Amino acid sequence: MTTITKNLTNTPKALPPSDQLGFGQHFSDHMFVAKYTEGKGWSEASVVPYGPLSLDPGASVFHYGQALFEGMKAFRKESGEVVFFRPEFNYHRLAEGAARLCLEAPPMDLFMEGLHQVVAADERWIPKGPNTSLYIRPTLIGSEPFLGVRPSRETLFFILLSPVGSYYSEGTKPIKIWTEEKYLRAAPGGLGAVKAGANYASSLKAALEAKKKGYAQVLWLDVEHQGIEEVGTMNVFFVFDNEIVTPALNGSILSGGTRDAILQLLRSKNLPVVERRITITEVVDRLAKGELKEAFGTGTAAVISPVGVLHYQGKDWTINNNENGPLSTQLYNEITAIQRGAQADTLNWLVPLKK
Amino acid sequence: MTTITKNLTNTPKALPPSDQLGFGQHFSDHMFVAKYTEGKGWSEASVVPYGPLSLDPGASVFHYGQALFEGMKAFRKESGEVVFFRPEFNYHRLAEGAARLCLEAPPMDLFMEGLHQVVAADERWIPKGPNTSLYIRPTLIGSEPFLGVRPSRETLFFILLSPVGSYYSEGTKPIKIWTEEKYLRAAPGGLGAVKAGANYASSLKAALEAKKKGYAQVLWLDVEHQGIEEVGTMNVFFVFDNEIVTPALNGSILSGGTRDAILQLLRSKNLPVVERRITITEVVDRLAKGELKEAFGTGTAAVISPVGVLHYQGKDWTINNNENGPLSTQLYNEITAIQRGAQADTLNWLVPLKK
Repeated sequence: MTTITKNLTNTPKALPPSDQLGFGQHFSDHMFVAKYTEGKGWSEASVVPYGPLSLDPGASVFHYGQALFEGMKAFRKESGEVVFFRPEFNYHRLAEGAARLCLEAPPMDLFMEGLHQVVAADERWIPKGPNTSLYIRPTLIGSEPFLGVRPSRETLFFILLSPVGSYYSEGTKPIKIWTEEKYLRAAPGGLGAVKAGANYASSLKAALEAKKKGYAQVLWLDVEHQGIEEVGTMNVFFVFDNEIVTPALNGSILSGGTRDAILQLLRSKNLPVVERRITITEVVDRLAKGELKEAFGTGTAAVISPVGVLHYQGKDWTINNNENGPLSTQLYNEITAIQRGAQADTLNWLVPLKK
Repeated sequence: MTTITKNLTNTPKALPPSDQLGFGQHFSDHMFVAKYTEGKGWSEASVVPYGPLSLDPGASVFHYGQALFEGMKAFRKESGEVVFFRPEFNYHRLAEGAARLCLEAPPMDLFMEGLHQVVAADERWIPKGPNTSLYIRPTLIGSEPFLGVRPSRETLFFILLSPVGSYYSEGTKPIKIWTEEKYLRAAPGGLGAVKAGANYASSLKAALEAKKKGYAQVLWLDVEHQGIEEVGTMNVFFVFDNEIVTPALNGSILSGGTRDAILQLLRSKNLPVVERRITITEVVDRLAKGELKEAFGTGTAAVISPVGVLHYQGKDWTINNNENGPLSTQLYNEITAIQRGAQADTLNWLVPLKK
């Protein structure tokens, strides 16, 4: 494997207070970087002080959208041990996304070794408080400078670390969501299934307009404005009286790591969960009939985020009296208990940090 | 207006030979940069030596796809005078795109002043040979460092200059195109109408696969795999025996500057050109009947690029015996003659460089 060099900082930063972290506001002392060049392979793999990248203004990422990322977390267990949550899931999704975006994915051993080494270097940055974690952002960008549309022959891979608290300022309280019919996040044949910056680029305006109307996120529909896809930056689950439904992965929905973990957890309990197409018409019809008990979003950043109010075509529908429901509460408690080592990791999700 | 400072290089580069330019391979000695910060406005506007940007690895452009560009050209007329081709068109499209991507567009006077000053600084880079020009790449990126999906509160604006020859290695010979039914460039409600890096991100894989099969570009269809949208990085025109058709701007098609110029030129000649929905089924049906006389792509980079072969569902259709057709040849000759001052600029397309 490519050798990883280390150049540690002489001026470590002060840690932010663990009860005032917010999300994505602080970066740790170091980052991992490595570079791929066509014909040469991977080189310059190193743990270095967190700092600016020097990139040619003609680099592909500035012009042709070659940017892909992952979102994952490390936790400090109550025992003090540090664990990653399902890093192989994120590696494989990164590799699939890189193929779609014509970027080069790092080999798995380079990804994992870089991950362990940079987190080990910044272990003191893993916060200890409740609802905190170390958010990890592996990123691939096209760095070759040229104009004229074609894939970059250089890929820059870097991993950033950010100590985080709750994603939403609401904390774990239910959020209000806006069903979006003007803007589209992704379509079949596009990039929706991979974690490309491009998907987020399209979503910003919709989220901004929803926020101005008082909604924390948008509910994304498909191109026909019927099939439900995602909620904001999360996957979505609907808990009906007789089944739990999440939209099936149709090629434009992101295969979320927390979505997958929740499916595993629900199936391990023999709960009636199904992945299928579900339309906004069905959700609203069943809301009207009192059959929708809970709805929640799932994602690495927010873990589980209950939906308290769903806006659709001029009407605000309240779900579960705008309170946290029993299932979303239970799932949140179980996942976070497993992450902190307070509950047995029977589904083998955790990978200890190598020392 | 924001003051523009100048810091000119002491080590100008050697000019590349004007008959070996290719496209987007060379950058000039200088670039224009300016920065917008929420609450502060535009600052640091300057013409500086071309060189690396120093950007925080958490910058929005690396994660959330906030990247938008323009493509435009300056020409050296036969008289020696330097002219821009329709810079106001590009400014307005940039401003519309910035609003869609939640980036800040520079005020028009800053855009124009930066453009004139950087091109004046690098006037010697404007090539003289046939089919050459100075390609100009204004670019906006989100530069604020944070994680968590929201618009950047900082925008970096820069203008790069690249002396160019023909976009295609084929020169102005007809190209072969592949009708794409697997991948999608854009969909209604997405970013297709603006020049976002995100659209190109989705297109790279399709173009690569088409190239491997021997086709220079793909013909993009709409989400229903029927309506024709664009060809590769160009708009597209079909010349039938009784009408000239280009797809109407439907929200997912880019409003091309050359498309608009060609429409003006055709209308000034009272030729029967229409902007309407046109399907691949119609094109192939009329090809079979011998009614399709010519097809060509239009774009700033390639100007006009005749289509000689159209592949659709397993069959290669030859158009106009795979030769340059009379209308595309005439349009190419007229536009390039106007750009070089060999034909009167009756449509007021040219803006002289301020000295």
